[in-house]
Amino acid sequence: MMLSDLITRHQSTLDAAVAANRDRTFHAHWPEPPSGKIYGETANDDGLKAFQDQVGKPVAGLGEAQQHGGNEASPYGFNLGVTYPMWSVDELVERASDAQVAWQALSAAERAAVLIEALERASKRFFEIGYATMHTTGQGFVMAFQSSGPHGFDRALEAVAMGYASQTAFAQHVTWEKPMGKMSVVIQKTYRVVPKGINLVIGCSTFPVWNTTPGMFAGLVTGNSVIVKPHPGAIYPIAIVVAELRATLVDLGLDPNICQLAVDTVEAPVTLELLEHPAVRIVDYTGGPVFGATVEAACAAHGKVVYTEKAGVNNVIVESFDNADQALGNLAFSLSLYAGQMCTAPQNIYVPASGVRVGDETWSVDEFAQHLRQHVDALVLNEKAGPSTVGTIQSAATLARVEEAKGLGLEVVRESAVVAHPGFDGARSATPLILKVDVERDDIYTREWFGPISFIIAVDNVDDAIHRVASSIQAHGALTTLMYTTDASVMDRAEDAIVRAGAPIAFNFNNFVWVNQSAAFSDFHGAGANPAGNATFADWSFVTNRFNVIGVRKQA
Amino acid sequence: MMLSDLITRHQSTLDAAVAANRDRTFHAHWPEPPSGKIYGETANDDGLKAFQDQVGKPVAGLGEAQQHGGNEASPYGFNLGVTYPMWSVDELVERASDAQVAWQALSAAERAAVLIEALERASKRFFEIGYATMHTTGQGFVMAFQSSGPHGFDRALEAVAMGYASQTAFAQHVTWEKPMGKMSVVIQKTYRVVPKGINLVIGCSTFPVWNTTPGMFAGLVTGNSVIVKPHPGAIYPIAIVVAELRATLVDLGLDPNICQLAVDTVEAPVTLELLEHPAVRIVDYTGGPVFGATVEAACAAHGKVVYTEKAGVNNVIVESFDNADQALGNLAFSLSLYAGQMCTAPQNIYVPASGVRVGDETWSVDEFAQHLRQHVDALVLNEKAGPSTVGTIQSAATLARVEEAKGLGLEVVRESAVVAHPGFDGARSATPLILKVDVERDDIYTREWFGPISFIIAVDNVDDAIHRVASSIQAHGALTTLMYTTDASVMDRAEDAIVRAGAPIAFNFNNFVWVNQSAAFSDFHGAGANPAGNATFADWSFVTNRFNVIGVRKQA
Repeated sequence: MMLSDLITRHQSTLDAAVAANRDRTFHAHWPEPPSGKIYGETANDDGLKAFQDQVGKPVAGLGEAQQHGGNEASPYGFNLGVTYPMWSVDELVERASDAQVAWQALSAAERAAVLIEALERASKRFFEIGYATMHTTGQGFVMAFQSSGPHGFDRALEAVAMGYASQTAFAQHVTWEKPMGKMSVVIQKTYRVVPKGINLVIGCSTFPVWNTTPGMFAGLVTGNSVIVKPHPGAIYPIAIVVAELRATLVDLGLDPNICQLAVDTVEAPVTLELLEHPAVRIVDYTGGPVFGATVEAACAAHGKVVYTEKAGVNNVIVESFDNADQALGNLAFSLSLYAGQMCTAPQNIYVPASGVRVGDETWSVDEFAQHLRQHVDALVLNEKAGPSTVGTIQSAATLARVEEAKGLGLEVVRESAVVAHPGFDGARSATPLILKVDVERDDIYTREWFGPISFIIAVDNVDDAIHRVASSIQAHGALTTLMYTTDASVMDRAEDAIVRAGAPIAFNFNNFVWVNQSAAFSDFHGAGANPAGNATFADWSFVTNRFNVIGVRKQA
Repeated sequence: MMLSDLITRHQSTLDAAVAANRDRTFHAHWPEPPSGKIYGETANDDGLKAFQDQVGKPVAGLGEAQQHGGNEASPYGFNLGVTYPMWSVDELVERASDAQVAWQALSAAERAAVLIEALERASKRFFEIGYATMHTTGQGFVMAFQSSGPHGFDRALEAVAMGYASQTAFAQHVTWEKPMGKMSVVIQKTYRVVPKGINLVIGCSTFPVWNTTPGMFAGLVTGNSVIVKPHPGAIYPIAIVVAELRATLVDLGLDPNICQLAVDTVEAPVTLELLEHPAVRIVDYTGGPVFGATVEAACAAHGKVVYTEKAGVNNVIVESFDNADQALGNLAFSLSLYAGQMCTAPQNIYVPASGVRVGDETWSVDEFAQHLRQHVDALVLNEKAGPSTVGTIQSAATLARVEEAKGLGLEVVRESAVVAHPGFDGARSATPLILKVDVERDDIYTREWFGPISFIIAVDNVDDAIHRVASSIQAHGALTTLMYTTDASVMDRAEDAIVRAGAPIAFNFNNFVWVNQSAAFSDFHGAGANPAGNATFADWSFVTNRFNVIGVRKQA
C-alpha cells in the first residue's frame, strides 16, 4: 500500500479528531462498550483465548534478541510467565537513531496515517489487551477493556491529531516577496520539522496503555523514534500495541525500530541508563513522585524535554446537595472504582463542621459520613457490581498502605475488607477504607495515600475548605477536584481559587460521569500547573516541544 | 476606552499578524525605512531632541522609587547619564504577583488588544528609540532604528499573534453530550487559561529591544506579569517601551505593574536573585553562553520554563558562484554589518582546497580570499556607507577580542582598522578582521569570536565542509548557515545535513537579503535545536509553555 492511499483511508478519522480537539466536544473513535454487537460476537472469546495462549510464552513481533525476560504476576493470583526480548541500552538507542532518519523524512500527514493504521490494526485485539490489562493491573475486565482499549486508543489518536495540527499550523513552503520600492526581493522558503531526538516513554503499573499512548504517539507523529519502557509489572498490554505498530511499519516497508519495547526487571532496571543516554532527548514519565523527581532532575541537567505525570492529593469539598442520593452514589463510585488506584481518585473530603445542607435539612459531619459509607457499602457489597468495580490491588505495597492507614488510630467511618473474586481465589483485594481525621493532622492527610484510602475532614466553613484545598494543590499537587454545592456564589469562589491554584474542578457530578474519568478530545488530563506533574494530555505544549522547525531559504 | 472598543480597533492588525504567522509570507506592520514621508517630516528631529533632552536625566513613567541608578555609556564616546528607578527583588515580585490576578482574568483577545495599543503608542517614539539604541549598542542609526523600532516591534506583534492563536486554538466553552444508549449525559465544560507565573525577561547589550520584545510580549499575552531585566549597558531603549506600555495600562484602568523594569548595575547585579525567586516561573534569556548555562541550570533545578538564545558559531560554505560579484558583496555586508556583533553574523568560511568555481574559472582559496577582502574594503572604506554599516563596538571586551585574534599568528587576509565616525571622536570601532586558518586548528575557530572576526578555512572538498559544519552545529551551536553553490545535488546534500544538525540554512544570498537578517512572521529565529539556545522566535512552543489550560466541569 502506498502512503498516499493510507492518507486517504484515514483522512476522515484524522479530520474528526482534529476538529474534536479544537471543539472539545464528545468524540470517541472506538466505542467503549466491550460488546459483541460492536466488536464481533466471538471477539471476547477470541481475546480470552489469545490471552490464555500467550500465558507462559514469549511475545512475538518485538524483534529478535539473545536474552528474554519477564516476571509479571496477575493481582488475581497467578504468574503470567509471559516473556519479552531484551537488549542493551546501546543496542536500543543505536537502532532507534538509525530508524529515525527515514521516519523524520516523512510528512506529518504520512506519519499520522501510518499511526492511525497501526491503531486500527491493534484495535482488533482490544479484548486480548483487556485481559492482559486485567491480569497485570488488577482492574476489573470492563474497566481494563475500556482504559487500555477504546479510551487509551482515543488518547493516542488525540495525540496524533494534536501533533499533526501543530506541524501543519504553518505553511511548509512560501514564496516570500519583500517590496523594495519599485522592485522586490524574492526568497523561496521551506520550513522543515526536525524531531528533538529519541523519545523515551516510561510507563506505570496501573495504566500501562492509557498513560503510555499519549507520549508514545505524540513522540512518533512529530518524527521521533520512540522507546517504550513499561513498568516491569505491566508489560503485556502495551507490548501488543508496540508489536502491532511494528508489524504495520514492516508491512509498509518502514523500519520497525521506529518504535521499540525496552523490557527490564525490578532487580535490574534500565530506566535511568536509558534516560541518561545523550541521544534520548524527550522523556515521558508516569509514575510515583519520588522516582519522578529523579527523572525530572536528570532531564533538567541535560536539557532534555520531560513530560511528567506523578501524583497528587485529590480533594472533594461537600457543602450542599440538591440530590444527595445521586451525588453520594457518584462519590461512592469514584472512591471504589479500581480501589482508588487512579491518579484521579479522590482522597480528602472536606466538610464544613456545621454540616452539609441537603434541601431543608442539615446533615452533621457524622451523618454525612454514614450516608457516604452506606453508598459505598451498597456498591462494593453488591455481588454483581462490587468485584468488577473494585477490582484487585496491583501492588503488595498498596495493600500494606491500607494496613498502615488502619493503624493510624483514626476514627473509622468504613472498614476496608476483602472482595471475593469468583474463580480467582488468590486475588489481592481491598474495599475502600474511609477514615475521619482532625483538620490539624495535616501531617497525615496531605500525603498521598495511593489506594482505597480516603479521609473526611471537618473544617470551619466552605471558604476554609476552598482555601485549604487551594493550598494543598499548590503544595502537594492534584489531578482532580470535586465539589458539591447548590450555591452559585460558592461555586464561583471555588472555581476561581482552585483554577488559580492550578487544578481542574468538577461540580455536582451525580450521573454517568465521574471525577476520576477524563475524556479524550475534551478533558485536558493533568493540569501541568501544580506539583502533580508538568504534562497535559494533550494540549499544545504536549506536542510542540517534541520538534523544532528549521528554515531553508533560497534566493532565486 | 472600553476593552471591547480596543479589540475592534486592533482586530485587523491582529488578524493580519495571525495570518502571516500561519502563511509565513512577507508582512511588516511597521514600515522599516526611517523616512519622514512615513513617520512625519519632523519625526527624526523630534526623536533626536527627545533623546538629547533625556540625556543626564531620570526616565519617567516607570514608577516611583527611593533609589535610582544607571551608568550607560555610548560606544560613540560619551556617557548617557540616564537614570532609572530601582527596587528590591521582593518589591518587584510582590507587585508583579498582585498585578497578575486581574491581568490573567482578561480574555486573550483583550490582552492582545491592550498590547497592540501599547505597541502603537510606543511606535510614535521610534526615532527616540533609534537614537537610544544607537547610543547604547553602538549600531549605526538606520540599523538601530530598524532593529529596535519596526523590526523589534514586528517581533513583538508576532509573539502577541502567536500567543493569541495558541489560546484560541480550542473552544473556551462546550456543552459536552455523551450518548448513553437511549439517553445522554450532559456536562458544561469551560477551559481556562492560567499563566505559569511571573515571566522574567533578561536582555542583552547589543539588541536590547529586538531580543527582548518576543519573550516580553509572549509572556504578557499569555497572562503572565513580566519583569524586564535589561543589560545594564543598554537600558534606555527598552525603558521607553516599558514606560509606554505602563502608561497604556494606566489609561485603561489596569495595573501598570503587569510590566516592570528591573534595573541593576554591573557592580550589583540582581539577575540571579530575580530568577531564583520562587514566584518567577518563566525566564527568557538572551546573552552570552557562560551566564546562559547558569540561567538554564538554575531554572532546570526549580522546574521553571526557560527560553534561551545564547550564541553559536555561524558557518559559510563557498563552493561555487553564479554571480560572484553580487554574492561577495552580500557576504561582505554580512561580515561588516554592526561589526559582526549579531548572533547571526558569519564567522567561519569553509572553502574547498581545490578552489571556488566561478563560471568557467576556478579561484584558488587565496584568490577567493582576496576577492572577499576587496568587497569588504569597498564597503567599509566607503565614506558614506562604511561608518553607518560597521557602526561602533558595544563592549571593550569585543575590541580586546579583535586584538587577541590579531595576536594568534594566523595569516591575515584583511586587517581590522578604526572607522571614523564624524562628530564622534571618541567612537570605539573596528572593521572586519579576516584570518586564514589551517583546518587542523579547530581549537581556534570552533570558539565563538563575537565581533568583527572571521576565518577562512580550506577543506578537502564540499562534502568535507558540509560534514564539518554539521558537526560544528551540533557541538558548538549556530544561528545561521550560508552556502554558495550552483550545484543542485550539493544543495540537497547540504540542506539535509545542516537541517538534521539543527540549524537553518540560506543558499546563494546575493541581493537585498542577508543571512544575519531574520524576518518577523516568516523566519523562525533561533533554531532551538542546537547548543546555541532552546528558544525560537516565535514558534508554537515559544508561547504554549507559558500557560496551562484548566478545565471546569459542571453537571447540569
